[in-house]
Amino acid sequence: MSEYKNGINKANGLLPSVFQDVHVMIFIGFGFLMTFLKRYGFSSVGINLLLAAFGLQWGLLLQNVWHVDHGKIKVSIESMINADFSTATVLISFGAVLGKTSPVQLLIMTLLEITVFCINEHIVVGLLNVSDVGASMTIHAFGAYFGLAVARMLYRPGLKNGHDNEGSVYHSDLFAMIGTVYLWMFWPSFNSAIAEPGLPQLTAVINTYFSLASCALAAYATSSLVEHRGKLDMVHIQNATLAGGVAVGTCANMSIGPFGAMLIGLVAGIISTLGFKFLSPILAASLGIQDTCGVHNLHGMPGILGGLAGIVAVALGKLENSETTATLQAAGLASTLGFALVGGSITGLIMKIPIWSQPPDQNCYDDSVFWEVPEEEEEKEESLTHGDHSKNKTDA
Amino acid sequence: MSEYKNGINKANGLLPSVFQDVHVMIFIGFGFLMTFLKRYGFSSVGINLLLAAFGLQWGLLLQNVWHVDHGKIKVSIESMINADFSTATVLISFGAVLGKTSPVQLLIMTLLEITVFCINEHIVVGLLNVSDVGASMTIHAFGAYFGLAVARMLYRPGLKNGHDNEGSVYHSDLFAMIGTVYLWMFWPSFNSAIAEPGLPQLTAVINTYFSLASCALAAYATSSLVEHRGKLDMVHIQNATLAGGVAVGTCANMSIGPFGAMLIGLVAGIISTLGFKFLSPILAASLGIQDTCGVHNLHGMPGILGGLAGIVAVALGKLENSETTATLQAAGLASTLGFALVGGSITGLIMKIPIWSQPPDQNCYDDSVFWEVPEEEEEKEESLTHGDHSKNKTDA
Amino acid sequence: MSEYKNGINKANGLLPSVFQDVHVMIFIGFGFLMTFLKRYGFSSVGINLLLAAFGLQWGLLLQNVWHVDHGKIKVSIESMINADFSTATVLISFGAVLGKTSPVQLLIMTLLEITVFCINEHIVVGLLNVSDVGASMTIHAFGAYFGLAVARMLYRPGLKNGHDNEGSVYHSDLFAMIGTVYLWMFWPSFNSAIAEPGLPQLTAVINTYFSLASCALAAYATSSLVEHRGKLDMVHIQNATLAGGVAVGTCANMSIGPFGAMLIGLVAGIISTLGFKFLSPILAASLGIQDTCGVHNLHGMPGILGGLAGIVAVALGKLENSETTATLQAAGLASTLGFALVGGSITGLIMKIPIWSQPPDQNCYDDSVFWEVPEEEEEKEESLTHGDHSKNKTDA
Repeated sequence: MSEYKNGINKANGLLPSVFQDVHVMIFIGFGFLMTFLKRYGFSSVGINLLLAAFGLQWGLLLQNVWHVDHGKIKVSIESMINADFSTATVLISFGAVLGKTSPVQLLIMTLLEITVFCINEHIVVGLLNVSDVGASMTIHAFGAYFGLAVARMLYRPGLKNGHDNEGSVYHSDLFAMIGTVYLWMFWPSFNSAIAEPGLPQLTAVINTYFSLASCALAAYATSSLVEHRGKLDMVHIQNATLAGGVAVGTCANMSIGPFGAMLIGLVAGIISTLGFKFLSPILAASLGIQDTCGVHNLHGMPGILGGLAGIVAVALGKLENSETTATLQAAGLASTLGFALVGGSITGLIMKIPIWSQPPDQNCYDDSVFWEVPEEEEEKEESLTHGDHSKNKTDA
Repeated sequence: MSEYKNGINKANGLLPSVFQDVHVMIFIGFGFLMTFLKRYGFSSVGINLLLAAFGLQWGLLLQNVWHVDHGKIKVSIESMINADFSTATVLISFGAVLGKTSPVQLLIMTLLEITVFCINEHIVVGLLNVSDVGASMTIHAFGAYFGLAVARMLYRPGLKNGHDNEGSVYHSDLFAMIGTVYLWMFWPSFNSAIAEPGLPQLTAVINTYFSLASCALAAYATSSLVEHRGKLDMVHIQNATLAGGVAVGTCANMSIGPFGAMLIGLVAGIISTLGFKFLSPILAASLGIQDTCGVHNLHGMPGILGGLAGIVAVALGKLENSETTATLQAAGLASTLGFALVGGSITGLIMKIPIWSQPPDQNCYDDSVFWEVPEEEEEKEESLTHGDHSKNKTDA
Repeated sequence: MSEYKNGINKANGLLPSVFQDVHVMIFIGFGFLMTFLKRYGFSSVGINLLLAAFGLQWGLLLQNVWHVDHGKIKVSIESMINADFSTATVLISFGAVLGKTSPVQLLIMTLLEITVFCINEHIVVGLLNVSDVGASMTIHAFGAYFGLAVARMLYRPGLKNGHDNEGSVYHSDLFAMIGTVYLWMFWPSFNSAIAEPGLPQLTAVINTYFSLASCALAAYATSSLVEHRGKLDMVHIQNATLAGGVAVGTCANMSIGPFGAMLIGLVAGIISTLGFKFLSPILAASLGIQDTCGVHNLHGMPGILGGLAGIVAVALGKLENSETTATLQAAGLASTLGFALVGGSITGLIMKIPIWSQPPDQNCYDDSVFWEVPEEEEEKEESLTHGDHSKNKTDA
C-alpha cells in the first residue's frame, strides 16, 4: 500500500540528523519537561511515549492522504518529521490537562486533535500559502489553545484549591530540566527542519539560536524580578527559557537579522514569565482553565507573538520567494485559533463523557491510578534500617 | 601499527551522525535502562561504561584481524560502529546477570563473549552471506542466549525467593526511562547503521520506525490487559516497547513495507510483554535462569522472531542483490544460537571459579560492595532536620 | 548589522551535527556533571544554562570583532561552535567555585573570562599559529587555571573543615553520570569540530575515541587501586574517565596513531584520579584553593599534559601543513597559563568586592539561597503518611 521515497540525498545529508533532533525533542524533551510533578513522572514520560507513538502513525497517514499516488503513500524522512510535528500539538495539549485525564481520554484527544491539525494546516499552509516554517501558529498556538479549550471543558471544581500532589520535589524538578535543556538545545533543528535547504535553513537555525539565547536571559531576569528576595523560580526557568523558540518560529527563515530574532526572544521570555506569575492564577480562578503545565505561557502567548511577528515581518518584506502577504499571515493565525478553540471544545465535550475511566479528583496527579508504582513505604523503611538486614527481614 | 581510513565521504555524510546515535544507545541507552534497580544504579551506568570502553577496543581489534593490510589495521567510522555493535552483545548479557557478578567476572565475560561473537559473525555474515543488517540474530539473540547460559551457570539458590534490593523505587524507574526512550528513538540508526547507503539505508530507518511505533502500542495494550485493574507495569513499558526494534532488525533493509514492519513490531511487543509476565517466573523457578533484566523477553525471543521473519522475507524474495537464501538464513540463526549457548556455558563455568570476588548472596543488587556509596542514613537525617543545623552538627 | 554565511555545505554536511554534539556537551554535559552536590542541582543545571546563554552571545561578538566586514559580523555554524567553545572556559571555571558564588558574581566572571580567553586565543592561535585543535591548552588549561585563581581569591576559611552540603546523595550522583556519559560520548565531536574537513577531522575523531577508551580503563583501575578494599569512587569515575578527551585535544588531528592516543589517555586517566585522591586535599589545605569539582584534575593537569604532548608531537613532525614549531607550542602553553592566572586573579579580586550578593558560608552549596526550592519537609511527611490522606490534610 505504501512505499519509500529516497529523501536522504535531497537535502545534502542534513535531514536525518535534523529528524533525530526533532525526535529527541518529542520523546525526551516533551516527556521529561512534564516530570516536574512529584508523583506523575511515570505518566509524563510513559503516556508521552504512548501518545507520540500512536500519533505519529495517525499523523503520517492523514498528512499524506492529500498526496496519495496510485493508492500508495510515499514515506520519506520529511514525512516522518511532519508526523513528529503533528504529535507535538497533542503533547502540548497534554500539558494543559496533565494529571487530570485517563490514557483512554488522551488517545481520543490524539485522534481528534491530529485530525483537526491536519485540516487547519492544509488550509493555512497548503491553500493560503501562509509561511510558518517553525510552526509558531500551526503547532504551538494551535496545540496550546486546543488544550486550553479541552481543559476548560474538563474543569474540576474540586481542584479549585489545589491538590497535595500538584507540586514538585527536588529531584522531579531536575528530571524536568533534562526536558528543558534538550528542547532548548534542539529548537534550532525544530524551526529549520522543513525550511528550504541552504541559506533559508541556516537562517532558521541561527535566528532560533539567537532568540533562545536572549529569551533565556530575559526569563532569568524576569523571574528574579517578580519573585521575593530576587530568587529564581524553577517553573519559570523550565518553561519561559523556551518561549523564544516558539515565538521566532514563524519568522525563523525570514531575514529578520540577529537583532530581530533577539528582540522576539526577549519579549517572549518576559511575557512567558509574567504569564506564569500573574496570568495563570487568574485563568484558573476566573475562567476555570486549570492549565497544569502552563502551556498558555510557553506555547499559547509566544505562539501568538510568533504569528504577529510573522505578519509584521512579511509586511516589511523580510521573506523572499513567497506568495504570502501580511493579510494571509493574519488569516492563518485566525484560522488556527478558530480551529483550535472550536476543535478543542468539541474534543473536550467528547472526553467529558463519563465512560473513559476518568480519575476522581483525589487521585489526580497520581501515577498509581494507572501504573503499578513501587511501594515507597517499604523503601523508606528499608533505607532507614539499612545495614540491619535481620530486622528488615523479620518485618518483611 | 594502524592507520585511519577516510570514511566520512563514503556514505554522503551520514555515517558520523549515525555513529553518534549508536554510541548514545550503547552508553546512555543500555546504561540507564539498567538503573531501574533501587541500589544498583552506580554499577548499571558505571560498569556499563567500563565494559563498553573495554569491549570496543577488543572488538575493534578482533573484527579487523580478518582485514589486516601490511600489518596495519584500518580504522574508520564504520569499524567504530562495528566495535560498538560488538559491545552491545556484552551489555545485553550483562542484563541477564545484573547485580550478581563482580566487575572482574564481567571483564572476563567481555573478553570471551566478544571473541565468540566475532567468530560467529564472521561465519554467519562473512562466510554464509546471511543478511542480518540490524543484527536481530548476531547481536540480540546471541547476546541474550549467551547471557542466559552464563546466568544458568551462575545460578544462586539463595536468591530463589527474591532479594530485598531486587526492585525499583520511583526515581530509579524514571532514570531507567531515560535509557528506554533513547534506545527507542535511536533504534532506526542502529538498524540502518551498516546498511547500504541510499534506499536500503532509508528503508531500514523507516521499517524500524514503523515497527517500534506499532510495538509500543502493543506493549501498552498487552501490559494493561495482563495487569490487574488495567494498570500499566513500568517493567513492560521500559522493555517491551523496544522489542520491535530488535525483531525488525534482520528484515530492516528488505522491502517488507510498512505493514510488514508493523506486523513484526506488533507480535514482538505482545510476546515480549507476555514473556515478562508469564515466562520469566517460570524460567527462574524451573530452569534456574535468574534473568535480572529479562533480556530473554527483550532480546532473546524478539531476536529469534527477527531471525524467523528474515527467513520468511528472504523466501518471499523481499531482499534484492543478495546471495542469501532462506536456508542460509536458517543456518545463520542456528549457528548463532549454538555459539551463544555453548560459548555462554563455557564462559559461565570460567566465571564460576571462586577467585573473581563474587558478591555473596546478601550483597547482590547492592552498589556498596564495589562502590563508595554516599551514606543515605545521614542524608535522611539531614533532610529531616533541615534548617536545624546546630542539632545536625551535634549529631555528626 | 550582521548577516549569515552559508556554512552548511562547507564541510560536507558534517558541521551542523557536530555543532549539536558540542551544544549537548555544553548544556547537558557540563550542566549535569555538576549536579553531584546533594542540594545544588538547580544551580548546577540552571546557572550553567544562564552562563552559557549569556556567554555564547558575548563570545560570538568578541570572537568576530577581528573579522568585521563592512561593519557586519558574519554568523555561521562555525562561529556558533566557536561561541560554544568560549563558554566552555567559563563553565570549567564555574566548577572550581561551584556553590560559593552568586549568579551576579558568575555573570561578571563570564564577561571577563571570555574577554581574556579571546585575547589569549587570538595571540596563541591567530598570531603564533599554535596548533590546538581540541583546545587542551586554550580552553581546558585556561578555564581550569583561571577558575583556580578565582577560587584562591575567594578563599573561605570558614569552609576549611568542609560543609554539610558538600557531598552527594545516591540520586544526585546518577544525575551527574548523565553529564559524564554525554561528555564522554561526544568528546570526539568536540576535538574535531574545527579540524580541517576530511582526513584531519576523521583523525581527530578517532584519536579522541581511543584516548577516551584507554583513559576510562585507567581511571577505573586507578580508582580501585587507591580506594580501600578495591572499591570504585564515583567522583573518579564521573571525572577522570574524561581526562583523556582533554589531554588528547592538542594532538587530536596529528598523526600520533592509536597507540599515541591511548598512551595519552592512559596517563591522563591515572594522573587525574591520583589528583582527586591526593592532590586536591593538599591544594585546599595548604594553598587555600577550594576546588569544588576538582577542575584541576579534570581540566588543569590533563590540559597541561595535552600541551606538553603537543610540543612533543610537533617536535616529532606529527603535524603536516602547519607553520607551528615545538617552541611556538611551548609559547602557546606559557601564554595560556599566564593569561589564565593573571586574568583569574584580577577577576577574583573584582568578584570579591562585597556588593554581589555573595552567599554566607553556612548557605554555601545550597540552592535555596537563589532558588525557590520545593519543601522537602512536607514531601517526607507526605510520603511517610502516604495513603493516609485525612491525616495529611489535617496537618496541612
